[in-house]
Amino acid sequence: MRFEVLILGNSSATPMFERHPTAQIINFNEQIFLIDCGEGTQMQLHRYGVKSNKISHIFISHLHGDHYLGLVGLLSSMNLHGRYSDLHLYGPAPLIDIINLQLKHSETYLQYNLIFHATNPEKEELIFQNNTICVTSFPLKHRVPTTGFRFDEAQRSASLIREKIQHLNMPTVFFQQLKKGIDCVDLDGTVYKASELTKPAPAPRSYAFCSDTRAFESYVSSIQNVDLLYHESTFMHDMLPRAIETFHSTCLEAALIAKQVGAKKLLLGHYSARYRELTPLLQEAKLEFVNTELSSEGKWYNV
Amino acid sequence: MRFEVLILGNSSATPMFERHPTAQIINFNEQIFLIDCGEGTQMQLHRYGVKSNKISHIFISHLHGDHYLGLVGLLSSMNLHGRYSDLHLYGPAPLIDIINLQLKHSETYLQYNLIFHATNPEKEELIFQNNTICVTSFPLKHRVPTTGFRFDEAQRSASLIREKIQHLNMPTVFFQQLKKGIDCVDLDGTVYKASELTKPAPAPRSYAFCSDTRAFESYVSSIQNVDLLYHESTFMHDMLPRAIETFHSTCLEAALIAKQVGAKKLLLGHYSARYRELTPLLQEAKLEFVNTELSSEGKWYNV
Repeated sequence: MRFEVLILGNSSATPMFERHPTAQIINFNEQIFLIDCGEGTQMQLHRYGVKSNKISHIFISHLHGDHYLGLVGLLSSMNLHGRYSDLHLYGPAPLIDIINLQLKHSETYLQYNLIFHATNPEKEELIFQNNTICVTSFPLKHRVPTTGFRFDEAQRSASLIREKIQHLNMPTVFFQQLKKGIDCVDLDGTVYKASELTKPAPAPRSYAFCSDTRAFESYVSSIQNVDLLYHESTFMHDMLPRAIETFHSTCLEAALIAKQVGAKKLLLGHYSARYRELTPLLQEAKLEFVNTELSSEGKWYNV
Repeated sequence: MRFEVLILGNSSATPMFERHPTAQIINFNEQIFLIDCGEGTQMQLHRYGVKSNKISHIFISHLHGDHYLGLVGLLSSMNLHGRYSDLHLYGPAPLIDIINLQLKHSETYLQYNLIFHATNPEKEELIFQNNTICVTSFPLKHRVPTTGFRFDEAQRSASLIREKIQHLNMPTVFFQQLKKGIDCVDLDGTVYKASELTKPAPAPRSYAFCSDTRAFESYVSSIQNVDLLYHESTFMHDMLPRAIETFHSTCLEAALIAKQVGAKKLLLGHYSARYRELTPLLQEAKLEFVNTELSSEGKWYNV
């Protein structure tokens, strides 16, 4: 089952070196989610072949321009492209006022339902759930109210071992029971053992998005054991005073967070415009957390 | 004296085929003006080597997203890049509320003065003037209040004919008089004739920007005799019903307007996303107005 992240933008406040402001696509089994929507996101979606009208949910971390200024353009273009399906939007409470003011003055009337859910910048909350995935928002530490987002795959049931099943004359009504781990007995008294006839589902996967934030103890509990952690790494550690001043993190700090929470892999991003060459950022993070990768625009990352 | 227009975006509502939403730079003798500021304008400025902090005045035609959604990002980036000089912004009255709401929630405090001037969508108005250029706004015919902008170079004084002057033993205090066309007499009774010693200044040049609008009689008087006319040409004429419905113009109509006002040259733009190949649009306009050119992104056009 597909669970991947596409980086549409990995730049911090000032777009530079053809890097764009923050935006990411999550493709979870063809459910398409957008996280953040910096200026130019609709062009980036087009460039990387993502149909914007397939996006069902948008999650905005905070109201700094480089994380949401592409949103009104995207919502308007979805309208022009004939969207009718509901769109769920999650973000800081004032976001809907900003959108409504702009739609009003452009006299744009959305023909689809835009369903807004204000995020809570004070505490962790489950904000979306269906049978296959759930999304949690959690507070980050930034200059304005900011949340991260965690995507958790639901625990799937065990699967039948086809090679063993096909030789048995077992009633098919037993299949669902066995998948749930329940042994079955037929009218002849034959016992079918779940432990022998099924293999357990793979462990549920998880992805966490942390941008923008000071590396801080407060959100560590929200991102425990994620498979893939995107953590902002605006600066290298020699710029720590600047990171503290602007409520951002260094590459070293991102790596220490990844280590502390037991992440399987760390993805760096939100690079300052002062860095043309990013290899030193990667090298710094790897000092503390080897399984680190630089996020690159246009690239899909497996969760 | 330089008077040129740089096209940063020539797309209509939906950015497509690597065409960007509307934005243009006017360089008039190193005074830098920006007209409209669609999403991604700050990236386009960077791509084409225009330093955003050299922009002194920004003119926004109307509040459809493809004409102003890059503005808050640009204003914020100017701040990050250390701008301190005043910035004059002209546009529809609600624009300043939209900007202030977004700056408030991003907790951005501009360290430069942003001086807002509401445009009048009801009648022509002189909105800016210095010794060398003046700018007039005038009503267009669109779905929301919209103005065009006309840039008129000031009449320069005549210039002295150096070859004739250098052989005369004329008091230098006469120079300014002669340039104004006033004959001078020195103490010996020698007469210096302005008509002989000066050559007239070239005729003042003018540029007009008309986007978005139905081609209409109402603004024809505002763009009489412009040297260069940028007129939107969203559709070809077979799409006239759609042009009427959406308050846009066809290429043929743009050409007829150029002919009617006695423009020297017509520049087409604001192309619909339905046209990948633009040559047919040019051919259609040339049927009525030969001196027509397609606006191309990244290209400078002489006024």
